[in-house]
Amino acid sequence: MKHQYLSQLAHRTVDPPISWLMKLALENPNLISLAAGFTDSESLPLNEVREAVESILSEKKKGRQVLQYGAAAGDEKLRQLTMKGLEALDHSGEVRRCAYEWERTVMTHGSQQALYLVTEALCDAGDIVLVEDPTYFVYLGTLASHGVQTRGVAADADGIDLEALERVLSRLEKEGNLARVKMLYLITYFHNPTGVTTSLEKKRGALEILRRFEKKAGHRIFLLEDAAYRELRFAGEDVASALSIGGSEGRVIYAGTYSKPFATGVRIGYVSLPEPLLTVVKRIKGNHDFGTSNLLQQVVLHALESGLYERHLPAMRQRYRKKAAVMKGALKEHFPAAVSWREPAGGMYFWAKLPKKISTGVQSPLFRQSYKRNVLYVPGAFCYAPDVTRRPAQNEMRLSFGSASEMEIEEGIRKLGQVIGGLLK
Amino acid sequence: MKHQYLSQLAHRTVDPPISWLMKLALENPNLISLAAGFTDSESLPLNEVREAVESILSEKKKGRQVLQYGAAAGDEKLRQLTMKGLEALDHSGEVRRCAYEWERTVMTHGSQQALYLVTEALCDAGDIVLVEDPTYFVYLGTLASHGVQTRGVAADADGIDLEALERVLSRLEKEGNLARVKMLYLITYFHNPTGVTTSLEKKRGALEILRRFEKKAGHRIFLLEDAAYRELRFAGEDVASALSIGGSEGRVIYAGTYSKPFATGVRIGYVSLPEPLLTVVKRIKGNHDFGTSNLLQQVVLHALESGLYERHLPAMRQRYRKKAAVMKGALKEHFPAAVSWREPAGGMYFWAKLPKKISTGVQSPLFRQSYKRNVLYVPGAFCYAPDVTRRPAQNEMRLSFGSASEMEIEEGIRKLGQVIGGLLK
Repeated sequence: MKHQYLSQLAHRTVDPPISWLMKLALENPNLISLAAGFTDSESLPLNEVREAVESILSEKKKGRQVLQYGAAAGDEKLRQLTMKGLEALDHSGEVRRCAYEWERTVMTHGSQQALYLVTEALCDAGDIVLVEDPTYFVYLGTLASHGVQTRGVAADADGIDLEALERVLSRLEKEGNLARVKMLYLITYFHNPTGVTTSLEKKRGALEILRRFEKKAGHRIFLLEDAAYRELRFAGEDVASALSIGGSEGRVIYAGTYSKPFATGVRIGYVSLPEPLLTVVKRIKGNHDFGTSNLLQQVVLHALESGLYERHLPAMRQRYRKKAAVMKGALKEHFPAAVSWREPAGGMYFWAKLPKKISTGVQSPLFRQSYKRNVLYVPGAFCYAPDVTRRPAQNEMRLSFGSASEMEIEEGIRKLGQVIGGLLK
Repeated sequence: MKHQYLSQLAHRTVDPPISWLMKLALENPNLISLAAGFTDSESLPLNEVREAVESILSEKKKGRQVLQYGAAAGDEKLRQLTMKGLEALDHSGEVRRCAYEWERTVMTHGSQQALYLVTEALCDAGDIVLVEDPTYFVYLGTLASHGVQTRGVAADADGIDLEALERVLSRLEKEGNLARVKMLYLITYFHNPTGVTTSLEKKRGALEILRRFEKKAGHRIFLLEDAAYRELRFAGEDVASALSIGGSEGRVIYAGTYSKPFATGVRIGYVSLPEPLLTVVKRIKGNHDFGTSNLLQQVVLHALESGLYERHLPAMRQRYRKKAAVMKGALKEHFPAAVSWREPAGGMYFWAKLPKKISTGVQSPLFRQSYKRNVLYVPGAFCYAPDVTRRPAQNEMRLSFGSASEMEIEEGIRKLGQVIGGLLK
């Protein structure tokens, strides 16, 4: 776009790669999309939302409050319950509590908005954010739109590779760029795209490393913990968040959401932040929209208070567990043994690694042949930051069981397996 | 704030002046706030929203769609109905229709977000936006947070003063700053704070002047028409929007909202824009939040389609008409003759001018004495852009009848009148 009157941000803002995939899906109604990051439709809480709205609006005084503006930071009770819930989840009763103070929370229009607000509050063009290799591609677009540079840090089965983190920071130090590093962005639960959950040890280790480099950076380096998928756990035990780590209160930003576990059409996310970020984010949020829709917040609050939310979770988790099992079974049956994949304990993604010689990119025979057979996946390269200091893998793919039906999952994986098998011959 | 790791935007983002007034109001529950820009509570459509949600969610297939993500630009049907409604309101059947194409619309989380997105798409730090004297102070804060400079242009009883607009642009030309001028921001219906509606002639005249200066600027200069209060009309005739002006399609950005006429807790605004702004704003909106809550959009869509919205408007307008009449009666009875004020034909504000010697500022005897007597208003100086080329008036005040009850309006104005009377002696 050459229009010189547009802002620098406008020039830097591009369509996310997924929008191209979505266009493909729209053009072909027979397509099985294992690409979309949509949540499961069958387990959506229709009755719960009806009941919540009916209950909220049937009382005049309450109803009027609900249909008015709220505070920019969000409803106090919802913020309180949110942080109480988070503290309970973290089992951190004995740890320092200030990280869980409800006043540190801002309700947002989905946790996506939380990521946006934090970026606005911390990052100028030319600043650097460290991300996992691979990472959430939409956020890569948001960072790029703000002119933020990204450096990828390798990760393994329990989250970020601490040695790699140290290496990347050391390199930035040598380059003289450490002062521009603002934060480390981690997707800590059922990672998008890899499905991996970060262990508490890794979170602790990462914070220690960041802290060590802060002196040379001349300022704090934050850990932005994106916990969007946390409540979509269907196996294993929960891991405490970085907020639970003593002494981390001033460094950890935690972004969570009710949208994914409850309903993505009810866009209620939240972010917990230390000062002075908290004040800044509240102000920017006010400029964005005066605060997230009061009606939506009250729907979630009612669901939490009445137990509707608690009762909804097991059914939703059961659905994901089942669909994950279907995908796992199909992968076992139909994918060649040369393809390795990770089984997640929650969320909605499997991450598959193909032999190196087989590219998954949009121009690859694999992608084209799959598309011809009406199956879509997310090429793994989409999920790597534009970091010239390393070459991203070209042989990976994200497979989502979020919105596809069980039949579609089975059929999609079978077809994909056939295409891969053919290419391996 | 000295934290060097914060972004420039963070450093430039301050609390809006109104938040200080809101704090005062919270500290004193007996306060009569004629300052708040909240809408009327009594006329909120509780039953309409209940009915809409019930109807939407009682059908399984529809309900599931509604509780899922939608498109970043918003629901197609809602965008279509919105632009149809706008075209009908503009009576512009015979004029060029492309300005009303629904594809040009993006649904936003209140029209506040539309203003934010447009600012992000057009403005870099150092750019210039022309605003009315006075104007909507929250947007002044948004502009300042982006490092945008503002120049105030005088306005009178039917909108912006065209000669003043020409003068300001000529001055910018002489200064060599014309290339930095990105747009003119006008609140064209029941202006916040002055209550004035801009005539179609003034809109046409402003567009002609902008166009004339475009050549010297080297690029387009946009007119951002903020029509947030348009549907809050309770007297007189509607005025067509700038979209109705032939040949203006590439220059006019129109921001409207369902929040104010329907429910501010249901945050659904919209913006109509020409390319390439449209594409840019859609992308930025995707990065913000993937699109405004589908549930909220469907509530508004259902209200529009079912006629609930149409039926709600007269009752809402009747309420505002009545409250405006109460405020007018009280002003007539209690305000000294030396104070002049404008009677609006819609919206929720009276704008009063006091004798020059009486300051309305927060440090003034008037403000302090009023506060002591439990009455709050918005000091007029809050609404003037930080433009050093002219001195803002210090003797004006915004009086809102939006959220105050009739009794409060009567009592608030009576007390204010007494304080002013005392100071005039």
